[in-house]
Amino acid sequence: MTSYDDPTKLTTPTMKYKSLQAIDARVHKERDIKSLFEPSSVAVIGASPDPDGVGHSILRNLMMGGFKGTIFPVNPKHKNILSMKCYASVLDIEDSLDMAVVVISGKLILQLLEELHQKGVSSAIIISAGFKEAGQEGVELEKQVHELAREYGISLLGPNCLGLINTDSKVSMNASFSRGMALPGNIALMSQSGALCTSILDYAKGNQIGFSKFISFGNKVDLNENDLLRYLAYDPKTQVILMYLEDLTDGMTFMHLAREVTSKYGAGKPILAIKTGRTNEGASAAASHTGSLAGSDEVYDAIMAQAGVLRVDTVQELFDYAMAFGNQPLPQSNRVAILTNAGGPGIMTTDACIRYGLQLSKFESTTIEMLKSSLPPTANVNNPVDVIGDARHDRYEAALQALLNDDNTDAVIVILTPQTMTDIEEIAQVVSRLAKDTEKPILASFMGWVDVSPGVKILRENGIPHYLFPENAAKVLATMATYKKWTKRAQTKERIFEVDRGKAHQVIQDTVNSERTLIPEWKALQILDAYGFPVLPSRLAKTKENLPSLCAQLGFPLVMKIVSPDIIHKTEANGVAVGVADLESALQTFEQLMNSARQYRPDAEIWGVMLQQMAKKGKEIILGATRYPKFGPIVMFGLGGIYTEVLKDVTFRLAPMRSENAQEMMSEIKGKKILNGVRGEAPADLEAIQECIERLSQLVVEFPVIQELDINPLIVSEYGASVADARIVLAEYDDLKELEKN
Amino acid sequence: MTSYDDPTKLTTPTMKYKSLQAIDARVHKERDIKSLFEPSSVAVIGASPDPDGVGHSILRNLMMGGFKGTIFPVNPKHKNILSMKCYASVLDIEDSLDMAVVVISGKLILQLLEELHQKGVSSAIIISAGFKEAGQEGVELEKQVHELAREYGISLLGPNCLGLINTDSKVSMNASFSRGMALPGNIALMSQSGALCTSILDYAKGNQIGFSKFISFGNKVDLNENDLLRYLAYDPKTQVILMYLEDLTDGMTFMHLAREVTSKYGAGKPILAIKTGRTNEGASAAASHTGSLAGSDEVYDAIMAQAGVLRVDTVQELFDYAMAFGNQPLPQSNRVAILTNAGGPGIMTTDACIRYGLQLSKFESTTIEMLKSSLPPTANVNNPVDVIGDARHDRYEAALQALLNDDNTDAVIVILTPQTMTDIEEIAQVVSRLAKDTEKPILASFMGWVDVSPGVKILRENGIPHYLFPENAAKVLATMATYKKWTKRAQTKERIFEVDRGKAHQVIQDTVNSERTLIPEWKALQILDAYGFPVLPSRLAKTKENLPSLCAQLGFPLVMKIVSPDIIHKTEANGVAVGVADLESALQTFEQLMNSARQYRPDAEIWGVMLQQMAKKGKEIILGATRYPKFGPIVMFGLGGIYTEVLKDVTFRLAPMRSENAQEMMSEIKGKKILNGVRGEAPADLEAIQECIERLSQLVVEFPVIQELDINPLIVSEYGASVADARIVLAEYDDLKELEKN
Repeated sequence: MTSYDDPTKLTTPTMKYKSLQAIDARVHKERDIKSLFEPSSVAVIGASPDPDGVGHSILRNLMMGGFKGTIFPVNPKHKNILSMKCYASVLDIEDSLDMAVVVISGKLILQLLEELHQKGVSSAIIISAGFKEAGQEGVELEKQVHELAREYGISLLGPNCLGLINTDSKVSMNASFSRGMALPGNIALMSQSGALCTSILDYAKGNQIGFSKFISFGNKVDLNENDLLRYLAYDPKTQVILMYLEDLTDGMTFMHLAREVTSKYGAGKPILAIKTGRTNEGASAAASHTGSLAGSDEVYDAIMAQAGVLRVDTVQELFDYAMAFGNQPLPQSNRVAILTNAGGPGIMTTDACIRYGLQLSKFESTTIEMLKSSLPPTANVNNPVDVIGDARHDRYEAALQALLNDDNTDAVIVILTPQTMTDIEEIAQVVSRLAKDTEKPILASFMGWVDVSPGVKILRENGIPHYLFPENAAKVLATMATYKKWTKRAQTKERIFEVDRGKAHQVIQDTVNSERTLIPEWKALQILDAYGFPVLPSRLAKTKENLPSLCAQLGFPLVMKIVSPDIIHKTEANGVAVGVADLESALQTFEQLMNSARQYRPDAEIWGVMLQQMAKKGKEIILGATRYPKFGPIVMFGLGGIYTEVLKDVTFRLAPMRSENAQEMMSEIKGKKILNGVRGEAPADLEAIQECIERLSQLVVEFPVIQELDINPLIVSEYGASVADARIVLAEYDDLKELEKN
Repeated sequence: MTSYDDPTKLTTPTMKYKSLQAIDARVHKERDIKSLFEPSSVAVIGASPDPDGVGHSILRNLMMGGFKGTIFPVNPKHKNILSMKCYASVLDIEDSLDMAVVVISGKLILQLLEELHQKGVSSAIIISAGFKEAGQEGVELEKQVHELAREYGISLLGPNCLGLINTDSKVSMNASFSRGMALPGNIALMSQSGALCTSILDYAKGNQIGFSKFISFGNKVDLNENDLLRYLAYDPKTQVILMYLEDLTDGMTFMHLAREVTSKYGAGKPILAIKTGRTNEGASAAASHTGSLAGSDEVYDAIMAQAGVLRVDTVQELFDYAMAFGNQPLPQSNRVAILTNAGGPGIMTTDACIRYGLQLSKFESTTIEMLKSSLPPTANVNNPVDVIGDARHDRYEAALQALLNDDNTDAVIVILTPQTMTDIEEIAQVVSRLAKDTEKPILASFMGWVDVSPGVKILRENGIPHYLFPENAAKVLATMATYKKWTKRAQTKERIFEVDRGKAHQVIQDTVNSERTLIPEWKALQILDAYGFPVLPSRLAKTKENLPSLCAQLGFPLVMKIVSPDIIHKTEANGVAVGVADLESALQTFEQLMNSARQYRPDAEIWGVMLQQMAKKGKEIILGATRYPKFGPIVMFGLGGIYTEVLKDVTFRLAPMRSENAQEMMSEIKGKKILNGVRGEAPADLEAIQECIERLSQLVVEFPVIQELDINPLIVSEYGASVADARIVLAEYDDLKELEKN
């Protein structure tokens, strides 16, 4: 197995966790995370009697949170804290110790790690700040801490974090300095921002939202989002995973791991993630279109899309989604019924549903009959169903039951406006009761604040997600449908084509030997040819004398282009001529191109003029690849020319990719209709494009030396495609061995 | 003055309300709206002692709301209600009567109107339902009610509405069957949905949001959104106007009126509007609900944009915006400073600011110095400013003061996360105090729910808009900046070009005489030529024998097109040839085109073949116009070809339009960069395009008989533009007099 092979290939429908375990075995070192989340005993290093101190908060939170194990305060300055015996050192604790929460700072931590090792402690949370966020000295300290922890096999959470909460009743641990314990629930949250955690906990407290695990992971010197994700994947108490991320430690691993977590045959748990820094400027100076278009945010979008992670922009969305994913079944598809007692909100919700990609379900005739028989004649029995302002719970019940029974309906949004006759609490009871007997999700919006609040309370207690405004319910339902589609997707594999790696290697080697990093078109096409791309037949004419025989081999008309490793922008140098019709023109053009090139750059090394058959008429596609240190190669696809340059209508995926990813790319661009043919044009050969995307993925995976690559344009006709121009830029590699993956 | 002239032309900087009054004089009949909003006495027709009845709710709400005038219950069945003397008929009331709230239904209302007229009542609210929303009989009744009310000069609000609330302490009237009185405030709300009003009132109650006027206008049989808007424009208690609309009664008037209301030299009051039915599904729901015809959504977008109305999608946005517009000054521009005690939320807010089109302000060096001197060294003194998790109110105060003093900063978003040390209430006090001494808007987000609530309360009491999540504050601020830009825009006028109306009239007349509605290219170009469009020189060759002299007049190369009123799609009929290079080809092409046309449609009347000079190379633009009954002519602009057909990158404005509107259209399309020239191309002649748009506006205003018009393409080069093809469709007019406006 080559090392870039997708480690999740082992996925099979029968072994739910098998593929996850495959990842574990491959990409994770052995980690004792269990003792971090489920310790039998915890020492608080730096426990303090000062009620304003963090060392006090932690101790108090552990006690008040009802921790089921034993707590050991450690602080040489005190004999007891909060009436508990206080130890001068962990080494003084007679009992065995699983985990330490650390609030002491700086160099002291290095000494502490020694003692924890001696004591046989296998995990610790470092709450203390003063590490890499505090400058160069902190960076150095963080490095030392990491090395020592690795050496001693101690799993570290933090530093610079709020801590950890596990609401599992068997553990009931609040190892954080939050203002209070989280309610139990099936949502896990992990956050790179500790401060955000305090806000989220306060918000959750006010909205009766519970958590299974609540993790602030700070500077992630040791345990990172991937380690935690793996733990949560197996955690039976966790059904939904929320993440707040500022960066990813290892994008490729995250992608593989998250894909397994979100997939039906993996853990089947939705992941909702905020990744900040959306607007950061991307790669500053790039030699290729792909390089300049692939800003870091697009890379994160690609990773999330490829992994089935639902990327959200705001904390509000995070909660809106989590309430539904955590409490309701997924809709089978995107057909939604709206039930309301007021027309206006019904229309607004209809608008929102369509805006977010849902369909209003068209009811079965039996449903309409049932609605007619139980609702007054002025009611609207079509979608959105309006039970009219004077409706009481009996009408809501009859209508909701009918909608849940309707085979064309996948989900129901229940809207209530507080009219004079509206029995809000009874209606909330009805919705809650009917929700228990259906496999379809129900989302509610009781519109208002004060009068509706007793009803909202009942809904919340019964796991019916409630939204202040029904548009939010529509948005959430659309995301649930998207996730359902992801879990139902056809799972394809990565295709490995038979290619001539040796030839590609040789061309790259030549360029490296010449101490250049740019591979010009003439040689780039040879590499692509070796990788099975449909390269247009081309010949290199070194001198005019070569022309007669080469032209005879190719036929007319021809494209002629200057070939020089020193001329990147051929058009700028007047180095391209199209539609060369006969030998006479070819001879003349040869002269012109050589002259132009010499004029443009007198010192340029000129290899000759390339002759190339004209492509069949077709649509111009751009394919490209670039590479980020943390993510590996990333592949771009888009419509060429103005669509790419002005409209930036391009999309990305990490390589290696599966066939499904190549297909998704083609269906994601805004101009996809152009591929299908507009104004009577024939459709483009999608299979040919897909194969090119997949071959490109293979190429950049097999040759890490390729830093950037543009195929621009790939001309695609109804049958087949042709590479008409290409450029490759190599990384500045010193060691030839790294050119190619073994 | 021609009748289509913009009635708002009288706008001058010195007379704030003059232009509004000009509109009043022109477009409004005399209406007694004052007696509706500020009556000295109100009769409740259909008052009832049944506590569940609407007739009781109204009476009780009037009493409990503290109405400053006299209330007269009217109901022949009762002697007194709620201890008040009850009258059998309004005619029995001895005192004078200003207004009636009507809850009786059906035909009884016709009789009542007679009595109200006799009693000298000049306005009434019809709460009762059972009108056009209830079917054909209701439509008929509504018509009768309207006619009678017009005849008697009674202003009617409703029917089928919740009623009206005026919180002005001089009136203090709750003439509605809402669950309670609104708090006083400077926000006016008018809604076409009564049920939505109940939700909005309940939401507002829970969030301490007050209203100046709260109006449910229902089926708007008489008073519509324009009448109410005019009233609110003058209302000194109203600073912000919120609208929930399902349709517009008269789009053209709304556009002119709203533009004056929102403009600095008009009333200068922002209008925030929800217009439902954005999607087709939504529109059909609107039709079945209120029986009102919803126009196409693009038309509404055009009207809103042209009038400076801020169109919003959700009730949440409506409130989010209203809280800020109602309480804070507008930012001078879009440069925002973020102040936070936590990094994560700061980054998220930065992302949101950029996403919504704001800029992060780059601080003056004095600001940075000031921040450095008052914040700890670990604080971030660049934007977003992070005062660090242990910040108390003193740091917030110093930093906020520095930011408000910064000349590069137009607005501040204050974020707080509830850390252990955070003195939430004191910080809220600081923000409130500093807000009193600045002309810059401050928006806040104290992130959380329970712990932050005392602080939020303080902010609310002091008019600091507070948002659960800071992303919403960013969105609101961006909209405030957009509105500020609108109020500061260069106000242009409508240009009236000197044109040959007579010639255009004649061509149209000819088509009408021939009993056709389609004006084919040959004649459409003549109309456009008469209106000063840059039409490519063309000649009509009726026979082959005409070709030599006509070709000599035009020169080569030429485009040749079949001319037939029966052939709409010339290309489909193989009726177009381009690049005709010489006379020989022209003769041959003539034959071919005639043959193709005869084959395509043997019975077609063929006028000959048009010869047309080739356009200079340039960009293809599409200009068009269409007409909706409620709105008049609407002009479209976009990039031609695939941009229009696939990407739907087009924009609309109502005609007649000002120069600024034509400019906006060109800057609104996504592909606007293409106009400016990409890949080294020269920019397109924007002035030429603008002039064409404005001439088109003039043409469709002056000839209401033009139902649809396409100029496709208009070919625009660096200097100048050329109409290369056009088509006009006439309305089915019987009366020639209506062809043209006088």
